[in-house]
Amino acid sequence: MNTKGISLGDLVDRLGGELRGERETRVETVGTLASAGAHSLSFLSNPHYRPQLASTGAGCVVLTASDIEQCPVAAIVVENPYLYYARAAAVIVPPPAVAPGLHPSAVVDASAHIDASAWIGPQTVVGAAAEIGPGASIGPGCVLGDGVRIGANSRLSANVTVIAGARIGSRCLLHPGVVIGGDGFGIARDRERWIKVPQLGSVEIRDDVEIGANTAIDRGAIEDTVIEEGVKLDNLIQVGHNVRIGAHTVIAGCTGISGSTRIGARCMIAGQVGIAGHLSIADDTLITGKSMVSHTISEPGGQYSGALPMDESRKWRRNSARFRSLDELARRVAQLERQSKDKDT
Amino acid sequence: MNTKGISLGDLVDRLGGELRGERETRVETVGTLASAGAHSLSFLSNPHYRPQLASTGAGCVVLTASDIEQCPVAAIVVENPYLYYARAAAVIVPPPAVAPGLHPSAVVDASAHIDASAWIGPQTVVGAAAEIGPGASIGPGCVLGDGVRIGANSRLSANVTVIAGARIGSRCLLHPGVVIGGDGFGIARDRERWIKVPQLGSVEIRDDVEIGANTAIDRGAIEDTVIEEGVKLDNLIQVGHNVRIGAHTVIAGCTGISGSTRIGARCMIAGQVGIAGHLSIADDTLITGKSMVSHTISEPGGQYSGALPMDESRKWRRNSARFRSLDELARRVAQLERQSKDKDT
Amino acid sequence: MNTKGISLGDLVDRLGGELRGERETRVETVGTLASAGAHSLSFLSNPHYRPQLASTGAGCVVLTASDIEQCPVAAIVVENPYLYYARAAAVIVPPPAVAPGLHPSAVVDASAHIDASAWIGPQTVVGAAAEIGPGASIGPGCVLGDGVRIGANSRLSANVTVIAGARIGSRCLLHPGVVIGGDGFGIARDRERWIKVPQLGSVEIRDDVEIGANTAIDRGAIEDTVIEEGVKLDNLIQVGHNVRIGAHTVIAGCTGISGSTRIGARCMIAGQVGIAGHLSIADDTLITGKSMVSHTISEPGGQYSGALPMDESRKWRRNSARFRSLDELARRVAQLERQSKDKDT
Repeated sequence: MNTKGISLGDLVDRLGGELRGERETRVETVGTLASAGAHSLSFLSNPHYRPQLASTGAGCVVLTASDIEQCPVAAIVVENPYLYYARAAAVIVPPPAVAPGLHPSAVVDASAHIDASAWIGPQTVVGAAAEIGPGASIGPGCVLGDGVRIGANSRLSANVTVIAGARIGSRCLLHPGVVIGGDGFGIARDRERWIKVPQLGSVEIRDDVEIGANTAIDRGAIEDTVIEEGVKLDNLIQVGHNVRIGAHTVIAGCTGISGSTRIGARCMIAGQVGIAGHLSIADDTLITGKSMVSHTISEPGGQYSGALPMDESRKWRRNSARFRSLDELARRVAQLERQSKDKDT
Repeated sequence: MNTKGISLGDLVDRLGGELRGERETRVETVGTLASAGAHSLSFLSNPHYRPQLASTGAGCVVLTASDIEQCPVAAIVVENPYLYYARAAAVIVPPPAVAPGLHPSAVVDASAHIDASAWIGPQTVVGAAAEIGPGASIGPGCVLGDGVRIGANSRLSANVTVIAGARIGSRCLLHPGVVIGGDGFGIARDRERWIKVPQLGSVEIRDDVEIGANTAIDRGAIEDTVIEEGVKLDNLIQVGHNVRIGAHTVIAGCTGISGSTRIGARCMIAGQVGIAGHLSIADDTLITGKSMVSHTISEPGGQYSGALPMDESRKWRRNSARFRSLDELARRVAQLERQSKDKDT
Repeated sequence: MNTKGISLGDLVDRLGGELRGERETRVETVGTLASAGAHSLSFLSNPHYRPQLASTGAGCVVLTASDIEQCPVAAIVVENPYLYYARAAAVIVPPPAVAPGLHPSAVVDASAHIDASAWIGPQTVVGAAAEIGPGASIGPGCVLGDGVRIGANSRLSANVTVIAGARIGSRCLLHPGVVIGGDGFGIARDRERWIKVPQLGSVEIRDDVEIGANTAIDRGAIEDTVIEEGVKLDNLIQVGHNVRIGAHTVIAGCTGISGSTRIGARCMIAGQVGIAGHLSIADDTLITGKSMVSHTISEPGGQYSGALPMDESRKWRRNSARFRSLDELARRVAQLERQSKDKDT
């Protein structure tokens, strides 16, 4: 008996979807339409890849009803193939189980409370009075300050730093190099020099948050920086002190958010966006890549853009040079309009 | 007797300011106008928060003379409340004292000189002939190469890397993930491939410099990269090889500075600015967010901008499309002007 | 006999170039034209530094034939002085040799294969079944997951993280804080929340690749993210899942590349460029700083730009305000043209 993988019958019993094929067929891994073999589950979501369907060698393809005719192999028909694939992949290739225990090279303060089902990896440091929840996994090289709390089943991959007092919820996933709780950029001018404003708040990260590699979330100046449940942050993002990011908002890589700005729930913010401080961004706002956000957005559900697409350098330089006198150009047009009107009268 | 915190009388004796209230009132912590309790010091600086003054529960508020009438509690009247608050907060909530010693898990080369009052945290590595000054604190997981020098009372938070030979002054503060002295991006073209140019300079960071999480400062190619005294760098900043940043300049997050550029003293550079290589930027220059700096700025004290604020996507796309033929538009206006002139004559 | 450094005669025998001076003169280090002493090799490549040639104190200068007349000291005449200098510097100041061995504080899984000539530094973690090639150097604080492969003579500087299964070629150089193989940003929408798409691919980095400090390269979703041979990446770059970067392409700091984009060979991409996902960029493409790439580039060898140079803030604001009604301005010009034409007829 094949115990590896899962039968298609069991898969649809568990996740739903309409199976077109044999319940007994087993899938053991996943693959792209172009590369998947007979024991792989594949999916068709992006229409860009539709031409690959007819020749796929996958064992089964997750797709919508409109693509079923072209599918040469077993299929699971669903409304949202990408979402179904996400769930199915987690069933077929589950994340490695956490083997509980403290690695002997870890330095764990005697006053820390580590749940018996949690794992503390090699070379990791856990500070005084820290609390690590059931099933949590703190990978190699992480540094957790005093009083840090990590919720159940959260995973800190490797070389993650969490500063004293920060709280991380359950089922969070923090990738390597993430820094939670560095000081915010608070400085006060004193004639020609700058005096540091003590950063005394902390960071609260709620449940089901994912944070990408080398992203930094600053601690608050007085109150806490807050990342609400279900937020997904990509790599190399800067989150300033006292920012609040609303539930289920997603933000792509290299975006920077200045201090004290509040971002609503379910927003989608693309990469390299820059957001000024002390703003509010309404729920369900969509912002495209490289935009500069310098004003509050009060109306929920809006879509905003702010970057010019590139062009051939020669053409770009000509247009760019004209931009430097755009105000003058507009005045000249107004002058022509006045002249035209004068002649008409 | 209450020994926690400080009395308002002692505070103004130490820091100045005009006290309106009882000298004996004690403050033990700090808070925002909206959340501070009776044992908290608060402040009013940003006019945005003025409406919160009348109902504050703070024990004392730092403010300017113009706001004193609306203050329902004790107050300290000063010219610059934010600066005063910065100093007062450091008195009321002082940073934790450094407990001297070497953690047994640290790997410290026998030839390194660690001052008896310094702290070397767990899992930290200190290379040969390194020198760690009095009161310095090298947090968990840091890696200091051979010959690194750290001045008195400087603090490397956690997981900071300092490459062999780099020097860091006194009272510096380096946040987690900072990299000092990675190789500069020096490559020489050899037909279709690139040959690495050995990076042989180092990094010199002077006194009172603060460097934010995951910021990277490259070592020089031949001579050193230099960060002068009092510079404040935010998170995720890239500083290329042989850059020199002048004293008391502040730079916000995600900004990138290409190699061999010299930035003057007391500049203020906002976030996500991009600065090309081999430029000079005069003292006291102010550059707003997301600007691209591609030319030298010779005149001190100027203010520069370079990013378009975002707009509704639909409107943005229309304007953006017109930008692609802006040069042609300008020519058409010139043509209209010529025609208009011809008709006049 | 002087055994330090190398004689100019030996240098040209080894690297070529036409020596103007004594074969016996020795150089022991390198320096800039302005600072080099009698035992230093210098070079003149950037015409910006030509005025410093006449007064240089260098022992020898690498330059082109056109500059030889002004050179007051020994010279090596070559076609490409910067390339020659790169090679000569590596000869005169060779990188420190790797002292083989495992530091006792390193945690190396018993099933890992570490070549006898490789070095594993303090506080480093090497996972099960990892393979570390001859002459490789894994610096302090690195974390290498299970099954990671590191090729011959590659060097991971310090605090580098390489996730399970990633392969790194020979002669690669990874600077501190680099993250190889964090999860890609794959999420599927489920009504108001987001479901993680398991990231099951890995990362393949081929030979002679250099990766700058705090740069992050995500693992593929199903297949691998691939960095081809000779690629040079600067600091703080984001490389999304399933990206492929072609051989000998160079990318400057703070650039972000979204998932599934393919970049050709020998491209040059400047800093803070943002590249959208699922695009193709042809070989030999040049993209200037801060550009936004939102479309595929099919034609090889093109040059593209996309950022406006900054201007004085006051002037910038006037032009920027006009941009917000550029479409309307274009319509007004068209209207004037129609009126002008009507009057002519």
